[in-house]
Amino acid sequence: MKHISSRDNPLYKRLMRIAAGKRDMQDADPSTVGPSVLLEGIHLCQAWLQYGGQPLVALFDAERLERDPELEQLATELYAAVCHSCEPRLAKGLSQVEHGQGVYFLVRAPAPAVPDRIDHLCIWLDRVQDPGNVGTLLRTAAAAGVRHAYLSTACAHAWSAKVLRSAQGAHFVMTVYEHVDLLAVVERLAVPLVATSLVDAESLYGKPLPAACAWVVGNEGQGVAASLLAKADRRVFIPQAANVESLNVAAAAAVCLFEQRRQHAGTS
Amino acid sequence: MKHISSRDNPLYKRLMRIAAGKRDMQDADPSTVGPSVLLEGIHLCQAWLQYGGQPLVALFDAERLERDPELEQLATELYAAVCHSCEPRLAKGLSQVEHGQGVYFLVRAPAPAVPDRIDHLCIWLDRVQDPGNVGTLLRTAAAAGVRHAYLSTACAHAWSAKVLRSAQGAHFVMTVYEHVDLLAVVERLAVPLVATSLVDAESLYGKPLPAACAWVVGNEGQGVAASLLAKADRRVFIPQAANVESLNVAAAAAVCLFEQRRQHAGTS
Repeated sequence: MKHISSRDNPLYKRLMRIAAGKRDMQDADPSTVGPSVLLEGIHLCQAWLQYGGQPLVALFDAERLERDPELEQLATELYAAVCHSCEPRLAKGLSQVEHGQGVYFLVRAPAPAVPDRIDHLCIWLDRVQDPGNVGTLLRTAAAAGVRHAYLSTACAHAWSAKVLRSAQGAHFVMTVYEHVDLLAVVERLAVPLVATSLVDAESLYGKPLPAACAWVVGNEGQGVAASLLAKADRRVFIPQAANVESLNVAAAAAVCLFEQRRQHAGTS
Repeated sequence: MKHISSRDNPLYKRLMRIAAGKRDMQDADPSTVGPSVLLEGIHLCQAWLQYGGQPLVALFDAERLERDPELEQLATELYAAVCHSCEPRLAKGLSQVEHGQGVYFLVRAPAPAVPDRIDHLCIWLDRVQDPGNVGTLLRTAAAAGVRHAYLSTACAHAWSAKVLRSAQGAHFVMTVYEHVDLLAVVERLAVPLVATSLVDAESLYGKPLPAACAWVVGNEGQGVAASLLAKADRRVFIPQAANVESLNVAAAAAVCLFEQRRQHAGTS
């Protein structure tokens, strides 16, 4: 296993750039292939290996690799050519969390093309800006059995470190479409478009929910864009106590998605 | 209105200490009175004024006060003796967010005593550590009509800046008990204790939920403590898709609380 002991190592410098959210100089046109992304931690790396295959690069904290059986096991499942070890201080330098686990994967995020016909249960995120919200929305959707997420431009980047952390592996069981022009994609829908909205909406519990639909949830401050709301087949609100703030977007989605799941248990 | 133009001003230094999460030297024993807390932003300050009364101190960014009618209006509702203005750079120095709004209230957080008999719908937080989760839980509970929250020791501090921001004013419509020994308080319950749990639990949707109960949700990694689970009258899980992570604690609470609200519409 190649060992990195200097901050000036070109591969280490490349990983540092990506960890800082900068564009990888080796990335091609981002509209056709997904960006290079750094996954941190045993859970995300194992999930990638299970669902995405081999990483481009795997980097281990040399000291932790020696004493942590989980890391050791992970290393045995990797092609030797992708594996690198490094000094503990270098591994720490890459970490986005207080207590890192000493393992990183450099991977290419998938960049799936939006299908011509959308006939599956899915969630649409219209300008959801907070990475924690985007991650929690993906985690919640995955738990509710939703397998497709469409993110508009101006959403937090789905493969950023914060979103990955909040999503807890949801990326690996879902197809995540990014930079989607939601308004233009409405025409491809073969299922109803259901928007959460506080105005001009009916109770979530009023009529039965469809087994499959495209749920659209909106920006933290402004909600779903008026142009999208106008295209919705149904606008629903969650009846709540008077004189308090409405639910956070991720909490609202949890209530909607699991109410649908309750009504159609076993169908999704 | 008194004007502060130096970082060395004693009041400013006191506010800076509190903003940094340090204990206010003027606080008495924290077990008998609530701690001094700094509220930031027009929304929180207005909510305090509406529900909590006058602040101990109000501090305005002098420049913004002059050109922002909302701040001006707020200032007219305050006792002159509590109002201070300061240089914009000093106001920025206190801010916990990127785009501050130029207004701060120093207030004393309430420190309510746990009732001898708990016969109301309430939520119990057992060692929920992430401030965003604690804030979202309070916001969600308030929206669901829950008016009492009991936080164990080792929860994020309810009146910290991050929790206040996520809770969006829920603090002002709820009674928030902190540093509660939940296990000891079980004896005071006159309503069932319902725990969310992934093990030894029944479906949330299996039997009707009580109109009033104490919901207990647990630590992000470990869930509800075994000792508390053992005391629960009912342990419920949320049926979800296979092979994915369970819901985040705040999302899970949203599903439970709104399912209860759906079943008892109008009763809470």
